[in-house]
This record gives sequence, structure tokens and C-alpha cells, in this order.
Amino acid sequence: MSGQRVSCGVEYAHVHEISLALQESGRSGYDFVSVPLVHPRFVREHIEGKAKDRPGAFTRSDLLLTSSDWNSLVVGRLSQTSCVLCESEEWTVRSNHEAALQQELTYAAHLGLPAIMVSLTSARCVNLARLLHNRVAAGVSYQVWVKVSLQAPCDLSRQLRSDMPEFDSDFMTDTWTWWNRFHSIANIEKKIGVALEITADLPEKDVMERWLGEPIRCAILPTSIFLTNKKGYPVLSKLHQSLVKCLFKLHVQFIISGPMRHSHVKLYQQYLDHILSPEGDALVDFARGYEDFLQCPLQPLMDNLESQTYEVFEKDPVKYAEYEKAMVEALKEKIPDELKDEKEIVVMIVGAGRGPLVRKALAAAQIAQRKIKIYAVEKNPNAVVTLQSQQDENWGNLVTVVSCDMREWDAPEKADLLVSELLGSFGDNELSPECLDGAQKFLKDDGICIPSSYTSYLSPVQSSKLYNEIRQSRERDKHILAHFETPYVVYLQNKKELAPSQPLFTFSHPNRDSVIDNRRYKSLQFKIVIDSVIHGLAGYFETTLYKNIKLSIKPDTHSKGMFSWFPILFPLKEPIPVRCGDICEIHFWRCSSKKNVWYEWCVTSPVITPIHNPNGRAYTIGL
Amino acid sequence: MSGQRVSCGVEYAHVHEISLALQESGRSGYDFVSVPLVHPRFVREHIEGKAKDRPGAFTRSDLLLTSSDWNSLVVGRLSQTSCVLCESEEWTVRSNHEAALQQELTYAAHLGLPAIMVSLTSARCVNLARLLHNRVAAGVSYQVWVKVSLQAPCDLSRQLRSDMPEFDSDFMTDTWTWWNRFHSIANIEKKIGVALEITADLPEKDVMERWLGEPIRCAILPTSIFLTNKKGYPVLSKLHQSLVKCLFKLHVQFIISGPMRHSHVKLYQQYLDHILSPEGDALVDFARGYEDFLQCPLQPLMDNLESQTYEVFEKDPVKYAEYEKAMVEALKEKIPDELKDEKEIVVMIVGAGRGPLVRKALAAAQIAQRKIKIYAVEKNPNAVVTLQSQQDENWGNLVTVVSCDMREWDAPEKADLLVSELLGSFGDNELSPECLDGAQKFLKDDGICIPSSYTSYLSPVQSSKLYNEIRQSRERDKHILAHFETPYVVYLQNKKELAPSQPLFTFSHPNRDSVIDNRRYKSLQFKIVIDSVIHGLAGYFETTLYKNIKLSIKPDTHSKGMFSWFPILFPLKEPIPVRCGDICEIHFWRCSSKKNVWYEWCVTSPVITPIHNPNGRAYTIGL
Repeated sequence: MSGQRVSCGVEYAHVHEISLALQESGRSGYDFVSVPLVHPRFVREHIEGKAKDRPGAFTRSDLLLTSSDWNSLVVGRLSQTSCVLCESEEWTVRSNHEAALQQELTYAAHLGLPAIMVSLTSARCVNLARLLHNRVAAGVSYQVWVKVSLQAPCDLSRQLRSDMPEFDSDFMTDTWTWWNRFHSIANIEKKIGVALEITADLPEKDVMERWLGEPIRCAILPTSIFLTNKKGYPVLSKLHQSLVKCLFKLHVQFIISGPMRHSHVKLYQQYLDHILSPEGDALVDFARGYEDFLQCPLQPLMDNLESQTYEVFEKDPVKYAEYEKAMVEALKEKIPDELKDEKEIVVMIVGAGRGPLVRKALAAAQIAQRKIKIYAVEKNPNAVVTLQSQQDENWGNLVTVVSCDMREWDAPEKADLLVSELLGSFGDNELSPECLDGAQKFLKDDGICIPSSYTSYLSPVQSSKLYNEIRQSRERDKHILAHFETPYVVYLQNKKELAPSQPLFTFSHPNRDSVIDNRRYKSLQFKIVIDSVIHGLAGYFETTLYKNIKLSIKPDTHSKGMFSWFPILFPLKEPIPVRCGDICEIHFWRCSSKKNVWYEWCVTSPVITPIHNPNGRAYTIGL
Repeated sequence: MSGQRVSCGVEYAHVHEISLALQESGRSGYDFVSVPLVHPRFVREHIEGKAKDRPGAFTRSDLLLTSSDWNSLVVGRLSQTSCVLCESEEWTVRSNHEAALQQELTYAAHLGLPAIMVSLTSARCVNLARLLHNRVAAGVSYQVWVKVSLQAPCDLSRQLRSDMPEFDSDFMTDTWTWWNRFHSIANIEKKIGVALEITADLPEKDVMERWLGEPIRCAILPTSIFLTNKKGYPVLSKLHQSLVKCLFKLHVQFIISGPMRHSHVKLYQQYLDHILSPEGDALVDFARGYEDFLQCPLQPLMDNLESQTYEVFEKDPVKYAEYEKAMVEALKEKIPDELKDEKEIVVMIVGAGRGPLVRKALAAAQIAQRKIKIYAVEKNPNAVVTLQSQQDENWGNLVTVVSCDMREWDAPEKADLLVSELLGSFGDNELSPECLDGAQKFLKDDGICIPSSYTSYLSPVQSSKLYNEIRQSRERDKHILAHFETPYVVYLQNKKELAPSQPLFTFSHPNRDSVIDNRRYKSLQFKIVIDSVIHGLAGYFETTLYKNIKLSIKPDTHSKGMFSWFPILFPLKEPIPVRCGDICEIHFWRCSSKKNVWYEWCVTSPVITPIHNPNGRAYTIGL
């Protein structure tokens, strides 16, 4: 149901003939319909078993549509009254409406619907959450879409406040807390997601963004939020457009609801289809299909990369251009213009792979008009084959190919420039520090390292989607702890960053400390500005290649179009609920043994977690 | 090291000859000594590897004692300075002291000490906690005793407040939060426990009680807290005595510390030995060895009890006496004195077991001077053998033994009195309601049920000990969820009840409702009065046998000396930290199918947990 093209349904308050409704909606360009499971006139009394005695069926027959239509085109809505009254404190009222819901849920399963929808209208939803959770836990085919409005109606929140004096008023009017309460109780399943109803007034930025960390399956657009343009067509305000585009990136489906306010219902679908056409951005294009997909970080030092991996990353349109600029600057710095023909600059590319930096170094020498001599050092014998063939065919004696681990190479001379591309999503996590510490013995005292420094960044993020992905991989594999003590490389989309990222560990090269120690320990404090839930820590890096030439994957300084790195995610074993004003304190260690490097982490405020990955028990990076 | 007699050690600030110290302490009645692992004069420099160059050993040789003495008689204390300075923000300082601690930890393992001790002097203990956690996680033989004082010294807290302005002052001066912080980070192991240093001034009751929910291994009694009685002997104040007795019940060991203030060091040990002699209480005697031991609740309806189980419970000195009183009252109520010789009262004992209630009914009839006729109904054929032999030998035709499930029995006449003992630790959890609903068909319209009603009670409790017991059983068995979704019957000792228990579900008999439904749902709200951690929900019951004759296992109304029931504990999958002033909201359901009854539960404030035991997936009670 997701993909490039927008998937759009239409909601019917009630239908007389469901097959006609389907025909009409299909002709208008819609992909599916949302209808009540049971007509409100079928009043049911389950008290004292009387329901059995009432004559006639309680809803329409399954024969009205083919199974394949039920299975793919119809979202069934549970009775609103029963959803509310199954929270009643009166035993008979509650029991009656529980039974009504159970009957509807059973019927939805009988029809084989792809999804059912249930509405939350207050934070009083514990019993409803339990009923649905238990149904899903027992095994059902349908998804559960939990309809929540972006904003609580004013009169409703006033009423709720008098109903539930035990809760503070923010709690009552913040609809996200309703959903969070429901989802926290019923959170074991991917099957339960949000159907977010967009309101005419949009809440403030943080409130909107927080929804982007939730598993939104569907966005409901009431016709009342559409404006009318000069030609009489429905359009959305700029803010609404931008929200709808964000949601579309999360593969959300849309539903048009409410009375038609324009000449034809098809106009709403056509408008959405119009504004939701793909954008042109190298990173977005590259990353399509990788959204929120968990990958294990590469271990290029311990493992040899495959040809395809090299091929993908060599295509980055930004990274190598910046390396070239940095090398031009460094070559000019090394030898002043007046001496440029007299001296030769020794450039060593360590971890040369299949040669992209060799090519950029040759290009940089041309631009800078400097004479250079290149050593291309590579430990992967498969990549060395590619290097040697280029040397034979193109580079000639400008380039010397060395098949060796840079930490062990006995270089015949010392370098003016040491160029490497050993950075991972977290900067140092592919062991660039250890490699370059080994390689710098053949750098001249006044030699230059490119990159000259890099810094990892960390921020707390909310993403129940990613948390559940990790948990479910855990349940499959039965490695109880390992999945929550392992970082993941992931193109983070369905998430909310709860505070701006902060710098964590910095490494500079060459490292002239008397004792080189790449272990680190730092604690960071983040101020939380909105009630939310921390599911993990997002990691990024910035690097200075040379002087002011930088690369970054940190959201606010991201090098536009660069796709070589997705962020890294350090999970937490348990979600941490936080309130506005809380301080989130994170402790992070970079540890090492003779064989490995690893990270350990924990949270100490507002609650305390155990150490994650102690002794590197779940995840290490091999030296 | 634990048991009936108090185990008591003595702390040496430093020792010249450890073998002499051991001899002396042994002669004075002590079981072990606490000594520094390393003498402070052995200054170590680990910076830049210089430690290797310093001549000589860094501490005393292992040859000074035999291995068996090291293994059983010596608790080693880590260097205080290093414990504090491994939190330094200066890399070289921190690194040096981390290395010093690692050296001491390695040496403690080399000696094979039974325990090491580490002191907390502030909440700044994250790196120390991590070091010790990781050591223990990697596998060590010793226990780690974390020394924490009951009260922070005033000057210390003033200093800390200026050191760590990010924390509020309560946090700084409440030493429990130091320990909780340490333990939350390093909580994976039973190996880490508290060494609680008792202060001259004792904190308020809630603060004291909260420690009783922690895994206290050792209590340190400075000589300065002892008073001197008229004869010149050391004694403790009444409050201190009572605290020491509470700790002794938790199998805590004691250490006397500080300069000797009385004529001989042996006097302290003798005094403790004197005040810690066992008490005489039927419940305490019965429960010895069962403290905090997790048991699965009985399922007497589905399983047949064993003879030994009957035997144990028949010995209860209180329960059957109260049943007798209730029956006397009910017999008198049934027939007025003036008609006592004319009418016969039909008493049915349903679930008669091996006959204790039959015997009490016969005794009650004698006391009340009423004529009775007894039916003893029992479904367990093994117990019926016992009943029949007593009928043959003692009871004659006063008693008719019926081998049948009470729910299926076709009684030849109706009963005046229906007497049962079907209650579990949570009242209805052995399905008394369902059994009696089935049996009441042969109760006369004006018949009396004994018990006439019962109510379950619930309260949130803190007990990291029990939480860890459950978790470790989980890790052994790999049933990831089941152990946290199952209630346990347990003699709760190492716990703190965080709020008074509240009534949950009530059942009354006979049940004259038009539709009988034993499902229940209720939410309870508890006000938290001290920063603490909720690990589970303690369950109790009260029952009214007849009129004002009651039995109770609720702490504040517990029937003194009655040992038939220990409390029940409903675990939570994750500990919930709570702050003073928080509302703890608990939802509890009693659910049923045709075959089973089960409970489901969740917490919704201050944080939200998932539903525990949905659909009875981990635990049901068979009908």
C-alpha cells in the first residue's frame, strides 16, 4: 500500500450500499474506503446474555463484497460509543460495551479486513488499549489504526478536565499523551499504529515533530482544513503542505474525511497526488528504500569490503569534491608558488581502496600546479588488484601501489601529506584513530593529515518504530541483550531528535601527545523541552579535512547531497519517558583492549539505566 | 556466613601484621576482618606506564596467610582516593586511578577474598559503578559490598552541592540516591550489595524502611554510636537496637569499625550476640528459611495437594481456632437455644481435605450444644482415604464422606452451613468464588457461608532483591516474559511497602446476583511519599468468616501467629523509579475463560507499562 505514488482513501460516515461506495470512490481515484463496522442503529445488549436473543444480524453481510475487496479496500471503524464506554466504572455498562467491541473485532477478522480504526478522545483508554492489545497478541490479520487528533477540541478538554481531576491539564489536552498512554500499554506489536487527524490549526513545531517519531500509518485530512483557490479547487496552506510532505516521506497513507466542500470528491485526491511528487536530491534518491532500515556498521579494518560497496561509495557527489579541495589547499601550503617546480610533494593515500582518492590527488596536483609522488597503501588484496591495473594503465610511475596494512608498512621515505578516508558514521568508529596513529610514523614532522580532525556528536531521539524494530529482531534471535547493546547504521526518518546534538569525542591528526591513548569518557546533558520518550541515541560526525574544508552528517550542518554516511543509532534497552524540563544525562565511553575497540553507554538522568555493552560483550570493532 | 547466630567482623583502619590481626579478632569473638587492600604509602603512578618502573611490590604478599584464611576471613577495602578520583574530569588523574583500582581488583581476585568493599561518598559514582559492574560481569569470585552511610555528613553535602550544581540538594544529601544510582548502573548481579554504615542520628522512618528493600549484605556499626551503660559496657539506643534487629532478620553481617571506646573490643561482639537472639513467634519460626524465597502459587483445584502440604497447613495455630469460633456463632444463629435439641443443622464442608474443618465443626457443635450432621465433600481421592478412615474410626454416622467435586455433586439435601477453606494469598486466587458459586446450589435460601466474604489488597513495593531473583530465574530459563508475568507466593522480608495497601476485589457468599460474573477490573491510586523504585505489587487478603470473626494477612491487620499464607507478589517487568509526590496508578483485571481464570495488570502512572500476562499467556489458574 505504500510506495512512490500517494495511497489515498476516503472516509464514509456511514454507507447504504458498500459496493456502490467502493465503485464511486474508485472512480474518484481513491484506493480504499473507511466505513463503520456496525451501523449505530444495530443497538446491542450484551447484558445478561440478552444479545443472543435479539433477532436478526448485527451488521451487513460478508456477501456484499468479494473477499479480495474486503481484504484490500476496506478499513473498518469500531463503534465510537463502545470505545468510550468500555472505560466506564459501571460494571454492566463496561461489560456490555466490551462485548460489543469483541463482537466487532471478531467480525473484522471474519471479513479479513486489512485494518481497523479506533478513536481516542481522551487519556482514559487503558481498558480499550488492553482489549486491543490482547486481541492482537492472540493473533489477528488486521492492523489497528489508532485515530488521534493533532489538537484536542477546546470544549472536549474542558469536559475531560472535570472528568479526570487526578491528571494535570497539559496531560488532558496534549493528544500525544493519549496515544503514548495507549501505545505504552499496547506496544508489543508493529500491528498497532497511529491514524493522525490533521487539524485546521497546527500545534507548535516541537509538538508536530514529536509525532514524526511515532509509527504513523495513516493521516486523516478533513475536508474542512482545505482552502479554496481562485479556480475553486481545494488546496492546503503552506504549513499543511509541508506537514503532508513530511508524512508522505514516512510512507503514510491518507484518508479524506468529512462533508464534501468542493465540486467533486476526486479533487482532494488529485491535489494530494499533485503536491506529493518526488523531489530531486542525491541523498534522498540514494536512500530511498533505506528509510529506518537497521544495518550493522561496517568493519572495514577487520573485514575486506566488497567491490559493490566500494562502487556505491565512490559515487558520492560531495565527499570527493571536498577531499580534492582540501588537497589543493594542502599542496599549495606545502610548497609556495615560487618553488612549485623544484620540489616534489610525497602524498600517501592510506586505505586507498579502489583509488578514488588517488584520482582526486592527481586532479588536485594539476589544479594546484604542484609536482607530486603518490603512494597508495591498501590492505585489501582484492582492491589492490584494481589499484595495480589503474597504475599500469593510467597512472604510471606517479603512483606506487603498496599492498600492506598501513600500521605495519615500512615506508621507504616520509610523507608530506597523509590522506585517508577511514571515517564511520560516528567518526572514529571504524578505527581511524588507531590506523592513523600507526601510519603517522612515516609522516614528516611538518607533514599534514587529511582529515586533520573529527568529532562525534550525540543526541537523544524518540522513535518507537526503531525501538520496536530492534526489539522484534531481539525476540526472533533470542540474544536477549545483544540487539540493544549494538549500534546500528540507519537512515533515520521516523524519529524526533529531542535536543540538538552535542560534541562527544574529538580526534586530531597527527597526534603528537607523549602517550597516545584513544580511550575516552564524557557525559553530556540535554535539556528536554517537551514531554516525550527517549528510545536511543543518534550519533553523527563532523570532520575538518583541512583548514575550513569540512564534511558533516550532523543534521544542522549536513553536507548537502552527501550520501556516504547514514547516522548511527545507539539503542537503549528500555524506553525512557521524559517530561518537559527534565535533564537527560548520558555517559559514553570509548574503550579498548589489544584486539578490540568498543563503546559503552548509559543514561543517568532522569532515570538510570544499566551500562550497555559492558566489556564489549555484545559489540566490538576488531583492530 | 548467615544463619541463626550473628556473624560479626571488625574493621582495621590499617594493619601491620595481618596474621596477628586475625588472631586477635578471632580471640575477641569476631568471624572476619575488614582491611585495606593496599597501604596508602604504596603510592602508584600509572601515568605513562611509570608504574611498571617503580621497584618493589605494591602491597603485602599473599604468603602472609593461608589461602583458606584469605578465602573466608578477609574483606578487602579498595583505596578511597582512587574510588573518588576515578570520577575526575582530568584524563590523566582518572586514568591513573582507574588503573590503580584495576590493580587492586585483580589482586583481590588473586587472593580469593570473599568480598571487597568500596565506599560511596557522593552521587558522582558512574565511572566507579561501571568499572565494578564490568569486573563482576567478566566473572569474579568475590562479592562487592558498597559502603554507604545512612546520613551524609553536613559538611560533605555542602561541599558536594558546590561541586555538582546540576543536581538538586535533596539528591545530594540523600545517600540512598547515591546507592540507587550506583546500583542502577551496576545492577546485573547478585554479587553487588550494600554495606550500610549506621550513624548516631537515625533518619526518619520512611528513609530507614526504604533501605530494607535493598540487598544489604553488611551493616557497619562505628563504635561511636554505642552508648555506655552503668557497668561501663557498650549498648545501643532502643532505636538502634530495633534497626539492628531488622537488619539481622535480613541475614545481614555486621562490622564494628572505628577506635575502641570501651575496655575491650570483644564487648561489642558480645553485645550484638546478646541482643540478636531468636524471638518466639509461630509465623517467624515457621517461615525461617523461606524469607524472600519465590514459590509458585498452589493450584489445589487443578492439582491434588500432597499429604505433606495438608500436614503443614493443618498445624496453623490461629486459622482453625477462628473457624471454630465462626462455626459456634453460626450454629447458635441457626437455631435459638430453646430449640437446640429439636432440630439438626446440616453442615457441608466443601473441600474438606484431610478433615481439619470436620474436626472443628464437631468441636463447635459441642461448644454451641447444637445437633449437627456433616457432609465432608472432597475431590482429591487421596485425601478421601484419610477422611474415610477417620469416619470409620472416630466420627461414625455424624459425618458423611463424599468423594466428589463440589461443583458437580448432586446433594441429597440442602445445607444450613457451607464451610470452606479455599482462599489463597490473594483471596480469590485459588478460585474460591467459582467453587462456591457451584456449591451454593445446595445451600438453603437462608443458609450461611463461612467465609462470608473476602477482599484482596494491593500495594506497590520496592525490593531490588526480589526483582533480581525473578530476573535471574528469567535469564536461566530463557522464558523471556513468563517470569515477570507470573505471581509468586513469598514471605516478603527484604522489601519496603511504598504506600499502605488498598482494597481491590471483594467476593461475597452466597452470591445472589441475577447473573454471576466473577470478572473484575479496578484501578488504584497510591501517593508516593519518598523517592524510591517500584519493583512489583504485593498482594494480601482479609476475609470475614462470620460476622466479626476475621482472618487477615494484610500487614497492619495480620492475624498474629497465623502462617497459612505468605503474601503474593505480582512482578513488574521493569523497575519504575518514583519521586516523592508522584501518584502510582495501578490497573488490575481478573479475567476468565471456560477453562481458566487469570489476572492482568499494568501501571499507568508515573510511567506506563505494557499489560502484564495478556490473555493469561504466562499464568492461568485452571478451573
